[in-house]
Amino acid sequence: MKKDKSAKPVTKPIEGVMDQKLSRRDILRLTGVGGLGLLLGGTGAGSLIAARKASEPAPAALAANADTIPFYGSHQSGILTPAQNFIVFASFDLTTTKLAEVKQLLEAWTTAAAALTSGSLIGNVNDNPNLPPSDTGEADGLSPSKCTLTFGVGPAFFDGRFGLASKRPSTFADLPAFAGDALEPQWCGGDLCVQACADDLQVAFHAIRNLARIARGTAVLRWTQEGFQRTGGADPKGGTPRNLLGFKDGTGNPDVTDAAAMQEIVWSGSGDGPAWMNGGTYMAVRRVQLRVEVWDRSPLSDQENTFGRYRQSGAPIGAKDEFADLNLEAKDAAGRPVVPPNSHSALSHGDGSVKILRRSYSYSSGMNLKTGQLDAGLLFISFQKDLVKQFVSIQQRLAKSDMLNEYILHTGSAVFACFPGVREGGYIGETLLG
Amino acid sequence: MKKDKSAKPVTKPIEGVMDQKLSRRDILRLTGVGGLGLLLGGTGAGSLIAARKASEPAPAALAANADTIPFYGSHQSGILTPAQNFIVFASFDLTTTKLAEVKQLLEAWTTAAAALTSGSLIGNVNDNPNLPPSDTGEADGLSPSKCTLTFGVGPAFFDGRFGLASKRPSTFADLPAFAGDALEPQWCGGDLCVQACADDLQVAFHAIRNLARIARGTAVLRWTQEGFQRTGGADPKGGTPRNLLGFKDGTGNPDVTDAAAMQEIVWSGSGDGPAWMNGGTYMAVRRVQLRVEVWDRSPLSDQENTFGRYRQSGAPIGAKDEFADLNLEAKDAAGRPVVPPNSHSALSHGDGSVKILRRSYSYSSGMNLKTGQLDAGLLFISFQKDLVKQFVSIQQRLAKSDMLNEYILHTGSAVFACFPGVREGGYIGETLLG
Repeated sequence: MKKDKSAKPVTKPIEGVMDQKLSRRDILRLTGVGGLGLLLGGTGAGSLIAARKASEPAPAALAANADTIPFYGSHQSGILTPAQNFIVFASFDLTTTKLAEVKQLLEAWTTAAAALTSGSLIGNVNDNPNLPPSDTGEADGLSPSKCTLTFGVGPAFFDGRFGLASKRPSTFADLPAFAGDALEPQWCGGDLCVQACADDLQVAFHAIRNLARIARGTAVLRWTQEGFQRTGGADPKGGTPRNLLGFKDGTGNPDVTDAAAMQEIVWSGSGDGPAWMNGGTYMAVRRVQLRVEVWDRSPLSDQENTFGRYRQSGAPIGAKDEFADLNLEAKDAAGRPVVPPNSHSALSHGDGSVKILRRSYSYSSGMNLKTGQLDAGLLFISFQKDLVKQFVSIQQRLAKSDMLNEYILHTGSAVFACFPGVREGGYIGETLLG
Repeated sequence: MKKDKSAKPVTKPIEGVMDQKLSRRDILRLTGVGGLGLLLGGTGAGSLIAARKASEPAPAALAANADTIPFYGSHQSGILTPAQNFIVFASFDLTTTKLAEVKQLLEAWTTAAAALTSGSLIGNVNDNPNLPPSDTGEADGLSPSKCTLTFGVGPAFFDGRFGLASKRPSTFADLPAFAGDALEPQWCGGDLCVQACADDLQVAFHAIRNLARIARGTAVLRWTQEGFQRTGGADPKGGTPRNLLGFKDGTGNPDVTDAAAMQEIVWSGSGDGPAWMNGGTYMAVRRVQLRVEVWDRSPLSDQENTFGRYRQSGAPIGAKDEFADLNLEAKDAAGRPVVPPNSHSALSHGDGSVKILRRSYSYSSGMNLKTGQLDAGLLFISFQKDLVKQFVSIQQRLAKSDMLNEYILHTGSAVFACFPGVREGGYIGETLLG
């Protein structure tokens, strides 16, 4: 438990506790995760619990649950988890060549991740003023904010440095070159990835910063990218967020609550590859810069034909409802397809037999100093059980003839094998390294 | 009024309307800002209003007020406005040399700003599918999110291109060089600035993107920087946000509700300079990169001595309460000052006679490709009625001996004269250009 020169007892009125958000410190105190001593010490927090009837649910537990995504489980969180408002994505290069040190890192990251996702600071922060604090502190006082941390390894991890070449899933490799790729090395690849998502950008940043700090001597950051979805002024109808081209993005995504579909699309199963990936999934990440200035000069009808959807409603061209099926057979009076065959929707959909789970974020990274234009775009992320059969087959269609290609530039690319979930007492990647 | 192929009547149940956030479109319909015709047209929106008792306050007006900061007024918003969660700051260079075109731009920006801050899309968005949409659309469906847009001109605006050299306030000039400056041209200066702040990053981005689009042919972006404060998982006690060094930032800021203090510190008055700046203020912007990796290796006691405050509580060293006065006379048993004289707090405070209003944001911009370290820091912004007497005098003290200098790097710098507020029917900068 961290010492705190200026800590005050929690003296919030009991009647308010169900309504208000609790701070990370409050939750720790109330749930006892970080400080059973304080709970029993007769402070406001202790009194608060004592005053409740035993039959009532503990308010802190409710508050914590609403704002906390469990870290431990059979799958990693941050995959089926409904997208939080922010992402800080980080790719790391290992600087060690000792597998034992990689394992130590993943064990240390596990301990840290359990703290970070539950809203706790890492370690005994203020125990010794003569040492650097064990947590960098900028999330102190902030709620857990649905923070999820999702870990994976890149194809390079199996290159022989660690004696794990034989463990590489047979189809797991860097993506092939796609027509029109404009990849820049500083946005590509990596030995390890951490996808930090949260409803508070400062919480997600704090997570990546502290994980990078813990990695010092073992791994270094290779690239990072922040991203956002709508972030506070959300559509009250809970509508599909819009990308920075002004179109709804994610309408056709599979239903994450459909367990059978997720097993078919996302999760690597027992017959799908090495046993260590059972319950894991493969991530494709593409940093897609949008040529917003060019897009903004295009007529609305061109924009809508490019997507194959109406901008305002998100409905497929020819339909009224955003979630109407994409009817690629429909013809207009002149016999032409209603939805252009080379539109982004039509090509992404193909014959409908191949699906991926998208979980993308917009990004805005100031100006591109080379072009003087906004460096804004999409951090495309998808999860699938087979990169080649799913992501690659769709992206090959798109790269070849998507009308959207005129307005986008793929500048970054990486793939990662995201481990199955972590069991309590275990560590990230245990099925591979254990 | 924009046409909408897929518009549906607003059929929200009346009893829920006080609780829910309304979308930008809903608010427009209900308040009639964007579409009196629709309001009176017997649609759901009209029925909703009609169904209310005349004595009840209009719910949409309440919702709009809670989420909308008025654009028109005697001062510009975004200065005393409590800091929203996000900023997108943009500096522009004028490409025209014709004052009439500058005036046209500021008039067009005024119309757009009134729409953007009230949650409206710009123009008759979907009127003609053969034209580019008048609004880029990514904020469609989002609430106004307390969007404020604050406009100013840089010293370069008075360099003679526009015949306005005689209108330059006598002390308004680029900042002097400070010890330790590491300024990079791409983060400095500009003819015009727009500070877009909102509780939704996508709303702030949308504003800057559309203002840049409107400026095409007259002005181009020179530099932009996104920033954030806590963004969703806020401290339920409403505490002071923490910067990325983990310390509370803004504790000693003057009280924006104290009109006399604001007149003394922030607003240029009738005796303070040219009449066109009456009710305006001067902005200093500094892009301050934090050497987080170095900071994170420093002992807590060093960090606290550097700030002159405790990290956890934010209280001055030797005090218990965050808002305790900074007592620079206090000595310890050995006769040494309790608060180090070269600490950031002590030097910022000085003799307490000179104050500024700070309104800074943290930023995280991926990695610095030169150093391989996180490019994270502070977009420092302050408002004051006299840059030389206020910001410069404080910054000179800090640049000379602030213990924090070891951990920070000033990479960007600009100053802007922020006009007085815009009257309805007027335009931004009218007192200067009118």
